[in-house]
Amino acid sequence: MIEVLEEVYKLVTPSPEEERKVREVSQLAKSLVAEAVSAYRIDAEVDVYGSAARFTWLPGQRDIDVFVVLKDRGIKPEDVTSLLSRFFTERGVSWVMRYAQHPYLTLFLEGYEVDVVPCYKIMAGERPITAADRSPLHHRFLIDRLNETQRRDVRALKLFLKTIGVYGAEIKTEGFSGYLTELLVAYYGSLIEVLKAAARWRPYKTYIAFSDVRTKFRAPLVVVDPVDPNRNAAAAVSLTSMSTFILAARRFLKRPSLSYFQPRPSTPIRLNVVEVVFPYPNEPPDTVWGRYKKMGRSLYQWFKKCGFRVFRWGVESDENSYVSLVYVMDQLELMPYVLHRGPPVYDEAVDAFVEKYIGEEVVGPFVQGSRVYVIKKRRFTHVSECIQAQLGREGYEIRVNSYEGDLVRKNPWIT
Amino acid sequence: MIEVLEEVYKLVTPSPEEERKVREVSQLAKSLVAEAVSAYRIDAEVDVYGSAARFTWLPGQRDIDVFVVLKDRGIKPEDVTSLLSRFFTERGVSWVMRYAQHPYLTLFLEGYEVDVVPCYKIMAGERPITAADRSPLHHRFLIDRLNETQRRDVRALKLFLKTIGVYGAEIKTEGFSGYLTELLVAYYGSLIEVLKAAARWRPYKTYIAFSDVRTKFRAPLVVVDPVDPNRNAAAAVSLTSMSTFILAARRFLKRPSLSYFQPRPSTPIRLNVVEVVFPYPNEPPDTVWGRYKKMGRSLYQWFKKCGFRVFRWGVESDENSYVSLVYVMDQLELMPYVLHRGPPVYDEAVDAFVEKYIGEEVVGPFVQGSRVYVIKKRRFTHVSECIQAQLGREGYEIRVNSYEGDLVRKNPWIT
Repeated sequence: MIEVLEEVYKLVTPSPEEERKVREVSQLAKSLVAEAVSAYRIDAEVDVYGSAARFTWLPGQRDIDVFVVLKDRGIKPEDVTSLLSRFFTERGVSWVMRYAQHPYLTLFLEGYEVDVVPCYKIMAGERPITAADRSPLHHRFLIDRLNETQRRDVRALKLFLKTIGVYGAEIKTEGFSGYLTELLVAYYGSLIEVLKAAARWRPYKTYIAFSDVRTKFRAPLVVVDPVDPNRNAAAAVSLTSMSTFILAARRFLKRPSLSYFQPRPSTPIRLNVVEVVFPYPNEPPDTVWGRYKKMGRSLYQWFKKCGFRVFRWGVESDENSYVSLVYVMDQLELMPYVLHRGPPVYDEAVDAFVEKYIGEEVVGPFVQGSRVYVIKKRRFTHVSECIQAQLGREGYEIRVNSYEGDLVRKNPWIT
Repeated sequence: MIEVLEEVYKLVTPSPEEERKVREVSQLAKSLVAEAVSAYRIDAEVDVYGSAARFTWLPGQRDIDVFVVLKDRGIKPEDVTSLLSRFFTERGVSWVMRYAQHPYLTLFLEGYEVDVVPCYKIMAGERPITAADRSPLHHRFLIDRLNETQRRDVRALKLFLKTIGVYGAEIKTEGFSGYLTELLVAYYGSLIEVLKAAARWRPYKTYIAFSDVRTKFRAPLVVVDPVDPNRNAAAAVSLTSMSTFILAARRFLKRPSLSYFQPRPSTPIRLNVVEVVFPYPNEPPDTVWGRYKKMGRSLYQWFKKCGFRVFRWGVESDENSYVSLVYVMDQLELMPYVLHRGPPVYDEAVDAFVEKYIGEEVVGPFVQGSRVYVIKKRRFTHVSECIQAQLGREGYEIRVNSYEGDLVRKNPWIT
């Protein structure tokens, strides 16, 4: 275990140059934004928060968050964003407008993406106006509670979560946010203690709080946000993500391996896979992931109705050119006949059932136990007919057996 | 309806010659047996009972029952049978020894099979010693209760039951005995009244009794034997047989057709069928049917465990050269991989599950919801491998897709 952790710490510790560079770009971004704020006479504090400010970012990560904390609630965030964009255009800084709850700017500075997020200043316990308002409070809560060893453990835990596929609160992942990761290390004290605890977690029964609050949340995992007792900081964590972490923590403690931080490659197994591939829509990622995950689930249900057995499914996307619904299935084509169960013989409905099949090419109707059955022709035998019946014929492409992704591979971290 | 019934009555009424012949052979058989009984000084009454005696046999049926009703309980039925066999050998009457609860003789007389059955004389209400002892009482109960029209209706009902495949109390059919058929007509009054009642029957809820007795029986259909309130005269009727009769009665009343008495031929549908064919064992039919039905059911369960979907199955035999287990299936060969569900991630069993698959060629283990899964290789992909794993490799033959029997045809009586 000790040797493994030593390797892990090497992996997650940024080089002195990288650390210097992040500080430098953070400083530069902060002073640029501060200049803009002062130029437009916006009554706001400007500061760097998040992992870049707390030295808990992962090596190679190139995101920095600068917050414009508005004291005046009369100013709208979108106005701030629009003023700042004008300023950066004039200064020749390239930027792009992005959308979460409200618009924010991303600057491209020396190879880094700097998110400039306006928010309102609130006090601890005060009700936030926008989701971003809590960030300064989060920063203040964590900055004194994590010592250097713990910051290293936050980084290691982030890499662990990332490797097992549950790092990130976006809809794509439905996993653990950076803030939640830091809270867990602050709460349990170290990486190993987080893992030991997680190995004993139970979905819908685990409740973590820094103080005595007892707010009710209905979620697989509950971590009461220390700066807002009405918020579950783990609300984004799905049952599958939580369970994945439980399993990984348990397995890692039983058999420590670097594979939980550096996944081993594995060759795909030849299985029947159908992909339904759409062009990527011009919308924010969370919207796209949300919509296609929902569509993916309803197509999954429809496959089952059509008689297909789906082993595993998922949504994949490069968030740029395509979104793909992927189904690992028993078969792509079914036999032309199917057993169809009718009502009990003494039920009124039996006459309609029998009459329906009098003129049709069926076996039966026959009686088994107290019910009537027929063996009848299937509506759809090929998976593509089933897909077209649900989605129509336009706007997507069906790919068959060309998939070689994670859904058909051995688990890359379990050893 | 009236036209259909007129046709039916024509079908079920024997010709005057046939009727004369049955009387003649019955008389001959009775006097031969009486002669034997007297020759060996057996203290017994000899008489013809059953359908031949009550004129309720179906045209073409060539069975006659002669009973040797022993007054002396010191004589064993097997001794009577053995004495009689000696007598018939001397007389040059060909015979064969058969076995029910005890041995009996079948004589071959002028193209008829005459069963000569020893039994003990009992009084109404008295506990029988052998199952055959009730026959004289059954005869006495029915002989005055069925007038000529009702006897015709018994014949028609027998043909109805035969056509829909539920006539006969043997294990092969698990259906309605001749005696039960007569009881139903006696109870309800006519064929049509039996059908109207049956159309309203409910399995496990229908209780028919000629008197006020209230014995408890656990069976789909209960018809208290009027000569023995502790016996359910419908004990042999399986749930499927009863339900088949309910459905047929209901459908016939909705749409009367001669097809319920003369099944229409239909062409088989091409389905995947596997037959497991055994040589016919040298044992009484009820034993053979019982054993192979049981084997058939357990193989059916095993097929489901192996992942095969069985639409319908049955046991077929000519009671001479073969017994065959027949399965109509979705597929004869399955894809090589299967989804295998493991325990919840927080369960102690999860470690054993994961470790089992570490070295194997699987997809996963992966987490979905709170459980762990793998996609793993199947043990058996072809149906014959699955059969051999259960039955071994010897003593039977597997036939694939050569079956064209009733299990893959349209119902020959429903119209």
